[in-house]
Amino acid sequence: MSEAVKIAIAGLGTVGVGALRLLAANGDLLAKRCGRPLVVTAVSARDRNKDRGIALGNAAWYDDAVAMAAEADAEIVLELIGGEDGVAKAVCEAALDNGRDVVTANKALLARHGADLARRAEAADRTLAFEAAVAGGIPIVKALREGLAGNRIDRVSGILNGTSNYILTTMQNTGRDFDDVLAEAQTLGYAEADPSFDIDGVDAAHKLAILASLAFGVGVDFDGVYVEGIRNISALDIVYAEELGYRIKLLATARQTDHGVEQRVHPCMVPLSAPVAHVDGVFNAVVAEGDFVGSTVYEGQGAGAGPTASAVMADIMDIAAGRRGPTFAIPAADLPPMARASMDRHRGRYYVRLMVRDEPGVIADVAAALRDEQVSMEGMIQREQVPDQQGAVQVVMTTHETEEASMIACLDRMAGIDAVLERPRMIRIEAL
Amino acid sequence: MSEAVKIAIAGLGTVGVGALRLLAANGDLLAKRCGRPLVVTAVSARDRNKDRGIALGNAAWYDDAVAMAAEADAEIVLELIGGEDGVAKAVCEAALDNGRDVVTANKALLARHGADLARRAEAADRTLAFEAAVAGGIPIVKALREGLAGNRIDRVSGILNGTSNYILTTMQNTGRDFDDVLAEAQTLGYAEADPSFDIDGVDAAHKLAILASLAFGVGVDFDGVYVEGIRNISALDIVYAEELGYRIKLLATARQTDHGVEQRVHPCMVPLSAPVAHVDGVFNAVVAEGDFVGSTVYEGQGAGAGPTASAVMADIMDIAAGRRGPTFAIPAADLPPMARASMDRHRGRYYVRLMVRDEPGVIADVAAALRDEQVSMEGMIQREQVPDQQGAVQVVMTTHETEEASMIACLDRMAGIDAVLERPRMIRIEAL
Repeated sequence: MSEAVKIAIAGLGTVGVGALRLLAANGDLLAKRCGRPLVVTAVSARDRNKDRGIALGNAAWYDDAVAMAAEADAEIVLELIGGEDGVAKAVCEAALDNGRDVVTANKALLARHGADLARRAEAADRTLAFEAAVAGGIPIVKALREGLAGNRIDRVSGILNGTSNYILTTMQNTGRDFDDVLAEAQTLGYAEADPSFDIDGVDAAHKLAILASLAFGVGVDFDGVYVEGIRNISALDIVYAEELGYRIKLLATARQTDHGVEQRVHPCMVPLSAPVAHVDGVFNAVVAEGDFVGSTVYEGQGAGAGPTASAVMADIMDIAAGRRGPTFAIPAADLPPMARASMDRHRGRYYVRLMVRDEPGVIADVAAALRDEQVSMEGMIQREQVPDQQGAVQVVMTTHETEEASMIACLDRMAGIDAVLERPRMIRIEAL
Repeated sequence: MSEAVKIAIAGLGTVGVGALRLLAANGDLLAKRCGRPLVVTAVSARDRNKDRGIALGNAAWYDDAVAMAAEADAEIVLELIGGEDGVAKAVCEAALDNGRDVVTANKALLARHGADLARRAEAADRTLAFEAAVAGGIPIVKALREGLAGNRIDRVSGILNGTSNYILTTMQNTGRDFDDVLAEAQTLGYAEADPSFDIDGVDAAHKLAILASLAFGVGVDFDGVYVEGIRNISALDIVYAEELGYRIKLLATARQTDHGVEQRVHPCMVPLSAPVAHVDGVFNAVVAEGDFVGSTVYEGQGAGAGPTASAVMADIMDIAAGRRGPTFAIPAADLPPMARASMDRHRGRYYVRLMVRDEPGVIADVAAALRDEQVSMEGMIQREQVPDQQGAVQVVMTTHETEEASMIACLDRMAGIDAVLERPRMIRIEAL
């Protein structure tokens, strides 16, 4: 068998240790598949003495990950440190500049510096691979870059954050409210002490920016992503969604429109007939639509040591087998900047929930707001209700397709009605 | 830009014309993605004068596809003729022997002669690619061969035949019986005049044999697939499945067991919680389970000009970009023969429906048959029913997990009971 593939690992957290475990468990099989044995020749992490429950073998230890990336006896460097710049970025740059291939799981880094790193990789004629950065073990990067390469991709959309999906699924299953479920998720370790990154949509936005670049052949444009998290979803909304035939999901969607590319992360009502409506808990799913292939769906675990290590290993095997290509499917120099579609011009249907004082004339005022902004109501739910302590009842409506700017103007008007007791809650309805 | 990728197409049916349309529509984009323009330099089909609704440009016409494969000015030959040997096989052989790469959509050919063709391709240092042979546009071959390459695959399972799934979905939605729905499907063009290939499970078995080889790193073994179609599924079974919380699907499953590899195509009851339970109509889906990645699911259109052309094009782009590898992920010479697990030793739960004369003692006899074969009943449905003209009523039961051989012996015994009026219907319940 040919010479070993020498690997250096920067970062021995969950993913780094997962990769070591995978190599220990399946090393023989991998060698058969790529024709060369895989050997870890160097590692770097913060604490040399920490017990990680796995032997580091003869791997050289480096306190300085950047030095390792530049000097180690390795052809592939795994960047498994994380963070949108700092050491992680320096490790990737040092590795590429010194003629090594890089495999990373770092979505924040790619969302921020993907185009720069791609140029650097291509200048050095090296590979920068990142299957693990999006949707864990689901091989969606490969699917978009290679498997669907014959298509013009119209839309890529998905559930990309497991924490948010776990919270929404638990709210759905238990009827409990957001804060309560979040607190429990934190206790169980499914959500971070500072959960903002996940529940405010930032993590999903990082991943979406990467997918959009791959799908549409344009530069990564994280700053162009409209982001809205799940903090404002209430148990009531979930009940009404159910009644209307929807599930509420935090969906990340990138779409070609007549005005440019729409990139948006926000809670959506998705019809029960859509595959993503049934993707629950920590699972991720991506829907990719191409002009010839039609709609394709990919599901799997979006995080965790095993799935992430699986994705990292797929990249390593590609490199070892000589399967290479430009970082974002076409050469970085040929990636035009993304033409952003303004969120104001987004068109779609909307769900609106109003808390109103139970008194005559309220509905007429609300209807007038809709009329004045030319938003057409599709349906309304206003049941006989016992008003709460404030004398308030809930009114729920759905609209026909309209432009986001009109809808926002309409919500502003509604908020100004005296009998409307809080800012109306709006959730976009996604046609899938 | 570099020299063009020259392509010869053997077969201008639905898929061949689909590939031409895709090249006409997306040629510029494809050239950007693979760094070289794609040009069709030669074509061959039965009838030169047929109007196919698309221009053949300057492509050289060959009446003899095998001659074209051997002589044409092309580096890639597309075999889109079909059939498990004959011209299709000769085209692939002629192309490989003359130093050309081959892209095929031919599952029958690969299921029968995959190992031989792989050896031939590798001897010639050429690529034999076949994404389009399994599950249409879903990039499942690439996922198993590359995307999940870090895993030991335990199981691959899927809905691989659109015609059967369309029939079962329509039976489910309308309550109509098999023969009726099949006749309609034939009228609508969703089923062939001779539907056997699809509804008796042969087509799904071809595809399964290919997936099993890729997933487990063993030789293709089509003759080792247990095959049972959907002819015996009745509207009654669909009603009972619904009541028990299942959907009936024609599932193709390959699994590593302690006794070897199980390969089986047969109708299954799948729980409503399983993603494949909701894959309806002509859609296909594949579930692949790996030791690190866990369960991953892939869905999309399993047939048709567009999806198949998309898959063919992905293979062409890989070749054009220099992404190559052994046909079945590891070199053909290293593929051990598949160790077949006998279907007798399959373990699972079972659904059994009996038509019995409504008289005392029948259930006692049935229960005795179960006891004698050590099959443990899990539940039974026997409602107050008005007996039909024969004085018959339906009894439905489900079993705990048992071995297939015991179940078959049990069914034989039941069939021998005087008051059991027809051979009991059995459907396997699939744990997913």
